[in-house]
Amino acid sequence: MPHEFKSVRQAEFAETDMGGIVHFSSFFRYMEETEHAFFRSLGLSIVTTGFDPSIHWPRVHAECDYKSPLRFEDRFEIHLIVKERLDTRIRYGFVFRTLDEDPVRVIAKGEVVVACVSKIGPEGRLRRVAIPESIAVMIEPAPAELLDSCL
Amino acid sequence: MPHEFKSVRQAEFAETDMGGIVHFSSFFRYMEETEHAFFRSLGLSIVTTGFDPSIHWPRVHAECDYKSPLRFEDRFEIHLIVKERLDTRIRYGFVFRTLDEDPVRVIAKGEVVVACVSKIGPEGRLRRVAIPESIAVMIEPAPAELLDSCL
Amino acid sequence: MPHEFKSVRQAEFAETDMGGIVHFSSFFRYMEETEHAFFRSLGLSIVTTGFDPSIHWPRVHAECDYKSPLRFEDRFEIHLIVKERLDTRIRYGFVFRTLDEDPVRVIAKGEVVVACVSKIGPEGRLRRVAIPESIAVMIEPAPAELLDSCL
Amino acid sequence: MPHEFKSVRQAEFAETDMGGIVHFSSFFRYMEETEHAFFRSLGLSIVTTGFDPSIHWPRVHAECDYKSPLRFEDRFEIHLIVKERLDTRIRYGFVFRTLDEDPVRVIAKGEVVVACVSKIGPEGRLRRVAIPESIAVMIEPAPAELLDSCL
Repeated sequence: MPHEFKSVRQAEFAETDMGGIVHFSSFFRYMEETEHAFFRSLGLSIVTTGFDPSIHWPRVHAECDYKSPLRFEDRFEIHLIVKERLDTRIRYGFVFRTLDEDPVRVIAKGEVVVACVSKIGPEGRLRRVAIPESIAVMIEPAPAELLDSCL
Repeated sequence: MPHEFKSVRQAEFAETDMGGIVHFSSFFRYMEETEHAFFRSLGLSIVTTGFDPSIHWPRVHAECDYKSPLRFEDRFEIHLIVKERLDTRIRYGFVFRTLDEDPVRVIAKGEVVVACVSKIGPEGRLRRVAIPESIAVMIEPAPAELLDSCL
Repeated sequence: MPHEFKSVRQAEFAETDMGGIVHFSSFFRYMEETEHAFFRSLGLSIVTTGFDPSIHWPRVHAECDYKSPLRFEDRFEIHLIVKERLDTRIRYGFVFRTLDEDPVRVIAKGEVVVACVSKIGPEGRLRRVAIPESIAVMIEPAPAELLDSCL
Repeated sequence: MPHEFKSVRQAEFAETDMGGIVHFSSFFRYMEETEHAFFRSLGLSIVTTGFDPSIHWPRVHAECDYKSPLRFEDRFEIHLIVKERLDTRIRYGFVFRTLDEDPVRVIAKGEVVVACVSKIGPEGRLRRVAIPESIAVMIEPAPAELLDSCL
C-alpha cells in the first residue's frame, strides 16, 4: 500500500529572497504541492468530492528544519513519507534532497499534519471526522527503516 | 465624492528576490491591498455581502510599469486614483512613491480593471452586471489634473 | 531561430484565493517561470554569468488580461512568443490555454518587457546596455501570424 | 531588556486560498515580518550592516500549530516572545490572537529559530558565529510566565 511518494521540482526565481537563496516559507508550499500530487497519484484530489457531508483536509501542524541552502534553478527531490495514519489525521514527513549533486545533499526535512474534517450543522462548523474508509485503505505508515530517513 | 485613496506600506523581506529588490509580482498584491483598503474606507468590503444575487469583483486587466527599484524596509506610498467608473467595471490607477526620500521618487505606476459580476442561474456562471447603485454613488472618476499623475 | 516556447503547468492550491480561482498575481509568476525556462532551453540562465560587467534582466513592464477562470489542478499551457527584440530589451507575449478541455479555452493573455542592464561604476548603478551579441543572435521576433495569437 | 514585541496585521485577500481561509504558509511570512519589526524596534535591521565579516540570520527551524481559522479582513495580533538566546542563535515563539473578538481567540502558535552566521573565507562559506555583543545585550529570554503563553 502506498506509504511514500516522490516529486521533482526546480527552484524558481520568485521563490528566492534577497539573501540569494529560496525563502524559507517556500518549503511549506513545496510540501503541500507534493502532498496534493500524492493524493492525485492515488486517484484522489485534496479537494475531496463525493462525500456527504463534505470532507476537507486543513493543516493542523507544519514544520521544517533547514539543513543547507537551495538556490535558483537547483533541481531537487521532495520525498513524502507517511509517518502516521490515525483515525482523523495523517502525519507526513518530507525530505528535500539535491538531484544534480554527488554525493546527494539533504536540503531540508519537514513535517505536516493534516486533519480530516467535515462541515457539520446549519452553521457549517468544522468538526474532526474519521478518514473515509475508501481513502484510509489507500494510505499506510511507512516501514521503520524509511521513517528513519525523516528523523 | 471619493476618487482617490492613499496607503502606506513597507517592503518586506519575503517580497524581495535574489536580485536584491522587491519582486515585480509583489506590486500587484500591493495594488489589490490598496483597492481593498479603499473599499473599507467607504464602509464596504470587496467580499461584498447583502446583495442578491451576490456581487463579486474579479480583475479583468492588470499592468505595471517599473520605474526605479524598491528595496527591503523601504517605506512607500501607494496612491490609488479612480480612472474610470463604467456601468459594469472600475479602472484604477496606482502610483508608487518613496516616503523617506527627498525629492520623492516614483517607483512604479500601475493599473487594475475590476469587473462587477454576479453568479447567475443554477450553474453559478459569472455574468457582468451593473455596479449596485449604493456602491456606484460612492465612487467617481478623479479630476483630470489628478489623472495626469497616473500617466 | 527561437521565437517561441511552451511550458505546461498545473494550478496549485497555494496559488488560489478565497474566490475559488487562481489569484491574478500568480499569472505574473507563471510568465516569469516560462521566460526563465525559455532561457534555459537556449542553454542560458536569466541569472546571466560570464559577462563583464555583469548582465541583469529587470522587468520594466508587465500586464495581463484575464479571459476565463483558472482553477486548482487545472492543467494549462503557457505559450511564450517573442514580440520584439530591441537593442536593449525584449518584449514577450504570453497566451494561457487549457490543456484538458475541448475546445481549448484561452485563460489569459499577458506581456512582459525585460531590459538588459549592467552595473556601472563604483556605486553599481544600473544602466541599460545592448543585449550581448551571443544572446541576441539566439532570439528573434515571431512571424506575424504567430504574433496575432497574442493580440 | 526587550524580550517580546507585538505587531498588528490584517489578513489580505492574496493570503487566502480556495478553502476560504488564510493559507497556512502565510503564517510563516507573518512571523518573519514580526521578527524584522522587532529588530527595527531595537534600532537594528535583519539585514545587518556594520559588521566585518558581515552577519546574516538564516532560519534553521520554523513551525506552526493552527488552532482556529483566520479569514480575510480579520485583524489579528502577532505576539513575539524570545524563548531562548543562545550563543549563536535565537529561538522566538509567536502567538496569533484575534483583535476584534471577545473573548480573544488564539489562531495559531509558532516558533522560529534563527542562526547567526558569517561568510568566511574566499568562497564565502557560511559559518555559525557568536551573536555580536552589541546585539546580544539587547535581547533576552522572556520570563517563565510569559513563555508559558507560547506553549
